[in-house]
Amino acid sequence: MKLIDKSYETELKLVNKLIKDEIINETVIQELYDYIFKKNGKQLRPLLSLISSSADKRKNSKRVQIAAIIELLHTATLVHDDVVDESPLRRGVETINNFWTNSHGVLMGDFIYSKAFMLMVDISNIDILNELSKATNDISKGELIQLELIGKEDVSLNQLKKVSYYKTGRLFEASAKCGAILVAKSDQKYINNISNFAKNLGIAFQIKDDMLDYSSNAKRLGKPILQDLREGKITYPFYFAMQKADLKDKKYLLSILGLKNKTSVSKVLKKIELLGGIRETEVLLKSYIDKSIQLANKIDNKKIREEMLNLTKFSYERTK
Amino acid sequence: MKLIDKSYETELKLVNKLIKDEIINETVIQELYDYIFKKNGKQLRPLLSLISSSADKRKNSKRVQIAAIIELLHTATLVHDDVVDESPLRRGVETINNFWTNSHGVLMGDFIYSKAFMLMVDISNIDILNELSKATNDISKGELIQLELIGKEDVSLNQLKKVSYYKTGRLFEASAKCGAILVAKSDQKYINNISNFAKNLGIAFQIKDDMLDYSSNAKRLGKPILQDLREGKITYPFYFAMQKADLKDKKYLLSILGLKNKTSVSKVLKKIELLGGIRETEVLLKSYIDKSIQLANKIDNKKIREEMLNLTKFSYERTK
Repeated sequence: MKLIDKSYETELKLVNKLIKDEIINETVIQELYDYIFKKNGKQLRPLLSLISSSADKRKNSKRVQIAAIIELLHTATLVHDDVVDESPLRRGVETINNFWTNSHGVLMGDFIYSKAFMLMVDISNIDILNELSKATNDISKGELIQLELIGKEDVSLNQLKKVSYYKTGRLFEASAKCGAILVAKSDQKYINNISNFAKNLGIAFQIKDDMLDYSSNAKRLGKPILQDLREGKITYPFYFAMQKADLKDKKYLLSILGLKNKTSVSKVLKKIELLGGIRETEVLLKSYIDKSIQLANKIDNKKIREEMLNLTKFSYERTK
Repeated sequence: MKLIDKSYETELKLVNKLIKDEIINETVIQELYDYIFKKNGKQLRPLLSLISSSADKRKNSKRVQIAAIIELLHTATLVHDDVVDESPLRRGVETINNFWTNSHGVLMGDFIYSKAFMLMVDISNIDILNELSKATNDISKGELIQLELIGKEDVSLNQLKKVSYYKTGRLFEASAKCGAILVAKSDQKYINNISNFAKNLGIAFQIKDDMLDYSSNAKRLGKPILQDLREGKITYPFYFAMQKADLKDKKYLLSILGLKNKTSVSKVLKKIELLGGIRETEVLLKSYIDKSIQLANKIDNKKIREEMLNLTKFSYERTK
């Protein structure tokens, strides 16, 4: 991803350094910590908070700290998710639960969560504490709802949207909101608008993720294809394909949910595509991207606005 | 357990009601929540905070809230522990991971943790937030250290004590400390003394727990006997037995670590007993109990002092 203002790259390095410095001198933890943070992801969440707080550079150390907290919270979620989903790979690297054990995943996730809370308390801003503790709770609620939907054949579009919001949109929203609260405490309009923008961007990001899971694009490295289907998770492409399917196709689709039957991946991809699963998901994605652009355009600060539009473009066009 | 002042029983009911009221209206969560809180444990931790804050009853609602937060944190730890230890039973009831799945255990633990953090933020007391977020981090650190020691043959007494402190003493300490901070913010002597008391009581509580795991007492319901040994965990009775063992006994003891070989439970119990494992653990337990009594006796407030001495007596004598 290319940022307009290159100084964010320097700031992201500070974020990652702060995270590293927080490593406690217990050897076991250090090893796991290093392992988890070896490969950085796209770091969109810390970026959102850095950008939304960029108007007041006097607060640089708190800005970096909030971004680090958000990256830690996100990482803790990923580590626990990998245990829940029994994922073998993340960002092309073996997951903690795979390389070590589930127990390591559970406890290391807890360690990172509580580390994030310690850093949060250190910020001493009650509004930020409020938003981040609520967001963390909402994320786990989203994961529990998703777990409950696994293997279910009749999932509604609203349920899918709810899961996308709680699972992904919620932390995007909190990231922008906390950044905005830090530097523009009294500018409720700015805070609300940028939070709403980030929420829509996060949902769009999740929709794109679900789409990429059904893409044969060779560039899409880092995790196996059709992972959601394998886990018995209905996501947007499958949902929309089901809407267009006749009885025979429906029977086929339900038979591959969980991917227990030996079906070729390319056959699945072709069927979902033929039934309009990808096209309809693309339409939905576009609607959240349009909403994001519309909200980004309401940001007065030109630099912030352009950076947010740039992130939106990236999220829309990314192929991995 | 019998409390001197019966009003604590009423307060514990308020604690449990507050926890129940915090249940979110997602059906899946409610079901899991109800399940987890169906059987209350001894609730020593919320009691410690209620007692240490009992000098100022004007703060009753915050007192109850802190006690509820502590019980939630403790419960989240238990739910994750059961996943880590693959425990089938807790308090005589099937564990979440056993009745549902590991995934439910991981996510429900996260939900309870973050709920506790939300309630913590709501208290708006930075010292309390500080203590509780640190304690949560220390607990997970203790669990990670313990995980690292599993299957290891040479564990030192200091490592065992460290694990007992982080795993159990730390939250006992935080419970008393937060109660004390709430009502006696400026009385640093009271806060330090009662925190130190609770820390020693917590370590004693853990030592007794480890001892009970090697006891054939039929009253000891709720979880299987020799659970620690089965998990490959060296605890105090095993450790002390090893110190007295000759080469042949050492070989036998190491062969049963993990309990993979078919060995009769009664043979194991007898061997540990014969090698002084129980007696030496009892001596160590007594030293922490004596230290707790000594610190409790320094509490000026007679009612608080007597209640704490009563808790100490209970922790020492309990048979389950």
